[in-house]
Amino acid sequence: MNLPVALDAMGGDYAPRETVAGALAAAAAGVPVVLVGDEERLRRELAEQGGELPVVHAPEVIEMHAAATEVRRRRQASINVAMRLVKENEAGAAVSMGHSGATMASALFTLGRIGGFERPAILAEIPSAAPSGRVHLIDAGANADVRPAHLEQFARLGAAYAERMSGVARPRVGLLSIGEEASKGNQLVLEAHPLLHRLDLNFIGNVEGRDLLADVADVVVTDGFTGNVALKLAEGEARILFGWIKEALSSSLKAKLGGLLVRDALKRLAARMDPAEYGAMPLLGVRGPVFIGHGASDRRAVTNALLRAHKMAGSGLVEFLGGVE
Amino acid sequence: MNLPVALDAMGGDYAPRETVAGALAAAAAGVPVVLVGDEERLRRELAEQGGELPVVHAPEVIEMHAAATEVRRRRQASINVAMRLVKENEAGAAVSMGHSGATMASALFTLGRIGGFERPAILAEIPSAAPSGRVHLIDAGANADVRPAHLEQFARLGAAYAERMSGVARPRVGLLSIGEEASKGNQLVLEAHPLLHRLDLNFIGNVEGRDLLADVADVVVTDGFTGNVALKLAEGEARILFGWIKEALSSSLKAKLGGLLVRDALKRLAARMDPAEYGAMPLLGVRGPVFIGHGASDRRAVTNALLRAHKMAGSGLVEFLGGVE
Repeated sequence: MNLPVALDAMGGDYAPRETVAGALAAAAAGVPVVLVGDEERLRRELAEQGGELPVVHAPEVIEMHAAATEVRRRRQASINVAMRLVKENEAGAAVSMGHSGATMASALFTLGRIGGFERPAILAEIPSAAPSGRVHLIDAGANADVRPAHLEQFARLGAAYAERMSGVARPRVGLLSIGEEASKGNQLVLEAHPLLHRLDLNFIGNVEGRDLLADVADVVVTDGFTGNVALKLAEGEARILFGWIKEALSSSLKAKLGGLLVRDALKRLAARMDPAEYGAMPLLGVRGPVFIGHGASDRRAVTNALLRAHKMAGSGLVEFLGGVE
Repeated sequence: MNLPVALDAMGGDYAPRETVAGALAAAAAGVPVVLVGDEERLRRELAEQGGELPVVHAPEVIEMHAAATEVRRRRQASINVAMRLVKENEAGAAVSMGHSGATMASALFTLGRIGGFERPAILAEIPSAAPSGRVHLIDAGANADVRPAHLEQFARLGAAYAERMSGVARPRVGLLSIGEEASKGNQLVLEAHPLLHRLDLNFIGNVEGRDLLADVADVVVTDGFTGNVALKLAEGEARILFGWIKEALSSSLKAKLGGLLVRDALKRLAARMDPAEYGAMPLLGVRGPVFIGHGASDRRAVTNALLRAHKMAGSGLVEFLGGVE
């Protein structure tokens, strides 16, 4: 069974141009995609780009600055229609570059939670020195205030994803804190530590901020406030450092000459650090694969998100977590 | 009045060799230093390094793995003796590369808090794109769990430091959160926002992780858990990225040739990102300038810490905050 990925084609700052272009590239790479949104507009965009894709009409859109609660009122919004396709088993996964809060709300409302997971969480893959080339940070922003039991659930979600999606056998799971000893942390971490310890996971204890990108852990568990700050700091710092390197490489004639020679090598590194490489972040704990992308996503991010959503649909991850009876 | 800086010469992984070497370099740069610790051992170290400095004897040391509570029991420990020199106005500031928790406890116990500041906080200066070349992050780890009023106090401490120590006029103060809108954040940040807003500071509202190193804020306020994670992530990421750049520059013959030409320019950049550049972090909110350094500090970090402690003693910052009647 090779169900298509439902793309909220109206979501994102550059929709539908970039969503359609990204979808066409994913389809060319063998991933079936169904576009969800204003049918006339999407047909026109497809014609302009000279491509063909199935379209499911959705007359409404939840704009970036709408309240997430609009999700319940506007049943025919593109994000809701995309989620219903997953719910009704007509699509294997849903992807949106639109309103993140609305996408989370729609996933919860339409698909519902997997039993045993009280709070769906966002997982971010950040380039790291770990053998898989990435660290899995969870929660990266869905839940600003959590209880210790939620961190325990995030650990299970993150480990399952690292194992089944990134192919990491028995992933090392760390709890983000401010010291390696179990006695170091805030109240939340101090109480979560024994809960993670008793799980049947490869729990390596507390890890610190300096360990996040090092080859220390494959999965790093934290609350959505700390995780979102860490994710955005990691992305922002890479951008700023590469800017400074660029400056340094034009600081003298000698550096400029050298800069020409090292340009390709540094470009490959910068591409690796580019968040578009991962395309979008999975929302774990709901009854279906859902990926949430950045509003400013370009076609490359859309394509990568669709490839990963399709991979997750085929991975059996949701079934493994108990989301399908 | 040019009071010496009291250096806990027994604190740190490489004490007393690196502490003494760093102190001699600071003295050569015009900063009066008094060494505190085992007199015989320090005299021997001074003789070996061929230097002269005043020594105040302290027969005990709080080892790195001791409990911070040892501070109260061991009155003659070097860190306590150093703090007493500040308290008794025989030294203008105290610096330690030893046990951070013990240094904080000793500062609180011996010097006491400045009225109106319930929780002393650690300020970290991180290289950033701001005009002063750095962002002032407070709290960087002294208080893992705080209340909204503490964040308000951290804002006042951080702004005063940025203004008087880094020369930033009317520093931009941001509250670290997970969205720019005042409605985004965890419960702590949501409650702290209006408190910071009503202060007579240049409060610019919430800032995100991506803004930390950008030219957005001069002072970033957060709890000690998030701040410590952010500080260590920022330092760790710089180290890892420079490692990857080094690898990239040996990935081909062309890159290697270019690497030779750009080496000096990149070395200057790496030096700027080196935490030893700042030497140590001030503990703000106590009745005297106190700087806490990393246990692994080398002589350069010790020298830089002593220079900044001396600068703070002469800056009138503690007096401005109300610490001296």
